Amino acid sequence: MTETLSDIGEFGLIDHIHELIRTEGLPNPGVLLGIGDDTASIQPRMGYELLVTCDSLVEGRHYLTDHTTAFDLGRRAMTVNISDIGAMGGTPLYALVSLGLKADTPVSDVKQLYRGFLMELNPFQASIIGGNITKTDEANFIDITLLGEAEKGKIVRRSTAKLDDAILVTGYPGQALAGLLLLLQAENPGELRDHPLIRAYTSPSHRAHEGKAVALSGYAHAMIDTSDGFLADLGHICEESGLGAVLVQENLPLNDSLRRAAETFGQDPHALIMKDSDDYELIITCSKDNVEKIRDVISKVSETSVTEVGQITKAEGKIKLLLPDGEERDLQLTGWDHFKT
Amino acid sequence: MTETLSDIGEFGLIDHIHELIRTEGLPNPGVLLGIGDDTASIQPRMGYELLVTCDSLVEGRHYLTDHTTAFDLGRRAMTVNISDIGAMGGTPLYALVSLGLKADTPVSDVKQLYRGFLMELNPFQASIIGGNITKTDEANFIDITLLGEAEKGKIVRRSTAKLDDAILVTGYPGQALAGLLLLLQAENPGELRDHPLIRAYTSPSHRAHEGKAVALSGYAHAMIDTSDGFLADLGHICEESGLGAVLVQENLPLNDSLRRAAETFGQDPHALIMKDSDDYELIITCSKDNVEKIRDVISKVSETSVTEVGQITKAEGKIKLLLPDGEERDLQLTGWDHFKT
Repeated sequence: MTETLSDIGEFGLIDHIHELIRTEGLPNPGVLLGIGDDTASIQPRMGYELLVTCDSLVEGRHYLTDHTTAFDLGRRAMTVNISDIGAMGGTPLYALVSLGLKADTPVSDVKQLYRGFLMELNPFQASIIGGNITKTDEANFIDITLLGEAEKGKIVRRSTAKLDDAILVTGYPGQALAGLLLLLQAENPGELRDHPLIRAYTSPSHRAHEGKAVALSGYAHAMIDTSDGFLADLGHICEESGLGAVLVQENLPLNDSLRRAAETFGQDPHALIMKDSDDYELIITCSKDNVEKIRDVISKVSETSVTEVGQITKAEGKIKLLLPDGEERDLQLTGWDHFKT
Repeated sequence: MTETLSDIGEFGLIDHIHELIRTEGLPNPGVLLGIGDDTASIQPRMGYELLVTCDSLVEGRHYLTDHTTAFDLGRRAMTVNISDIGAMGGTPLYALVSLGLKADTPVSDVKQLYRGFLMELNPFQASIIGGNITKTDEANFIDITLLGEAEKGKIVRRSTAKLDDAILVTGYPGQALAGLLLLLQAENPGELRDHPLIRAYTSPSHRAHEGKAVALSGYAHAMIDTSDGFLADLGHICEESGLGAVLVQENLPLNDSLRRAAETFGQDPHALIMKDSDDYELIITCSKDNVEKIRDVISKVSETSVTEVGQITKAEGKIKLLLPDGEERDLQLTGWDHFKT
C-alpha cells in the first residue's frame, strides 16, 4: 500500500525531507544556519543587493495532478521563482518552501517534489534553507520564497524602458499555452507527456543565466519575464515606463511546433504567442545600437534564440501590432486575472 | 452589497493593497526596490546576518473565520513569524505575503488583514516588500515569509543548551489553548471576544523585543518560542542539545484566568500550560548565575513575567516533572502533528 502523510505524520515527513535535502542538495557557503531552528540565517555578501520573490502554485488552479508528475511540478514551482530572480539579472541562492498538503498525499510524491526543487536549485548551488508544512483539506499548494543576489546597482527593472528602444524576446512564447490546450483536449493525456509543447507547459525553462548575462553587460534598459504572457508583460514594461510599443507581426518568433498546434486548433499562431501562457521567457528592451551586443552576450551562456520583435513608442500604455499589409492594429492588454475567470 | 474579489479582480485588489501599504505602512531604509517588479531588492547591513522564516495559516485548520476578525487574523499571522525572528534574537525587517483567497472574499476583509500585518510590522519599521495573490476554491491561506537581521554571531539557537542550565519561560503559556477551548464550547462565541484568554488565542503577543534583548546580553545558552506548545518546544531544545530537563510543577507560571478556565474544564491547570497552545512565549536556558541578569535585561524592554521553571539535565531527550510530594513523573513529548489528528 502507498505510504501517505497520515502514516508518517508531519515530523516523520520533515525528517524525510531534511535527509533528502542533506544528501541530494548542495551546500551553500552563505548559509550560516539551515533548516532546523526558529529561522534560517544567511550571510549576505558585501557589494551585492539581495533579491526576494515569492510565487505559489495551487492544485486545480495552476496545475492538474493528472497532467503532471510530482517531479515536474517541483521543477516548475522552483522555475517560476528562479525566473523572477533571473528577470532582474540576479542569481538564485536560498529557497524557503511552504507546502499545504492533503493527508492522503503519498510520501513518495513529496520526495519527488523536493527532487524537482533541487534539480533546479543545484546548478546554482542554491539551497533550501527553510519552509513550512501544513495540512490542507481540499487542494495542495506550493508556495516558494526565493532569495537571490545581484551586484549592487546592476539589476534591470521593468519600469526603465526608453523611447525607441528595440524590444527583444528570448525563445518561443506561447508554447506552454499550446501545450496546455493539447493536454486539455487529449483523450489520453498520458500518451502525450513527451510532446515538446506539453513539456514546455509541464516543465518550462527559466532564462536566469541569460538574464544575469544581460544585466551584467549593462546594455539593457528594461527586462521582465513573460510569466503573465508575452503581451501582458510587455504591457507591464510599457505602463510602468510610461511608454507604448509597436510589434511587427511577421517578426514574432514562431517555430514549427507552435505553427502546427495553431493549425490543429484553427487559431492564428501569432495570437498564441501573445496570449497568457506559462512560459518563462525574457522580454528585454535596449537601444537599437545594442541589439547585437545583447544577442552576443546571451549567445555566450545559452543557445536560446533572441528575436527583435518591435520598438518602444511614446503612446503610453498602448501596444500596436503592425500587420504585413502595413495595417496597424490596437492590441488589447489582458493578463490572467484569477478572480475574474 | 459587499464588494468581493470577483468584483474588482486580481489587479484591482493589488492596486488597493499597494495603496494601503503606501499610506499606512512605514518606509524602511533598507528597501532598494519594493512591490511592483519581478522581485523586491534589499540592502543587507554590514556586520549583520539575515534571518529568514516562513509560516502559514490555513482557514479551517489554524483559524475559524467565525471566531476571529480579518484584522486579528492579520496580526496573528504576522506575529507567528515575528515570534520566530525574535526567538533567534533578531529584529523583523521585511515581509512577503502570499495569499490564497476565495473569489467571494470581501475586499474589506483583505484590507483589514493587511492593516493587521502593518499593525505588527510598523513598530519595527518593518515593511511588506512583496507577495503573491492566487485564487483558491475551498479555503483561504496566508503564507508569510519574514526576513530580519541580527548582529553577526549574536543569535541564540535552540541546540546549545548546557547541562544544569536554568530553564526560564516568559508570560503564561497555555492561555491560547484555554481560549480556544472556551471558544469551541461557547454557545455564542461573539460575546466572548474580549475575554483575556480568547484574546490570547485570537491576537497573541510575540516576545521579539525580549528575545533581542536576551540575545544581545549574551547571557542565554538556548532560546526557542513556544509555537508548538511549551513542552514540545522545551523538547526541541533538549533533543537538539542532546540533553534532558526536569520541571518543577509548583513553579510553572499559572495566572488566575488560566486557573479559573482549568476549573471550568475540569482539567489540571499544569497540563494546560504544557500542552500544545498557540502562545508565542520564549523558553530560555542560561547558567544559574545569569538568571537574574536575564530577568533584568527583559525588564528593561517589557513588563512580561519571567519564571524559572526547571533545569537542564543529562537525560537525553527526556523531560521529567517534579511534583510537590517529591514524586518525579516522566512527561510524554507530543507537539501538534497536523497529519495525525
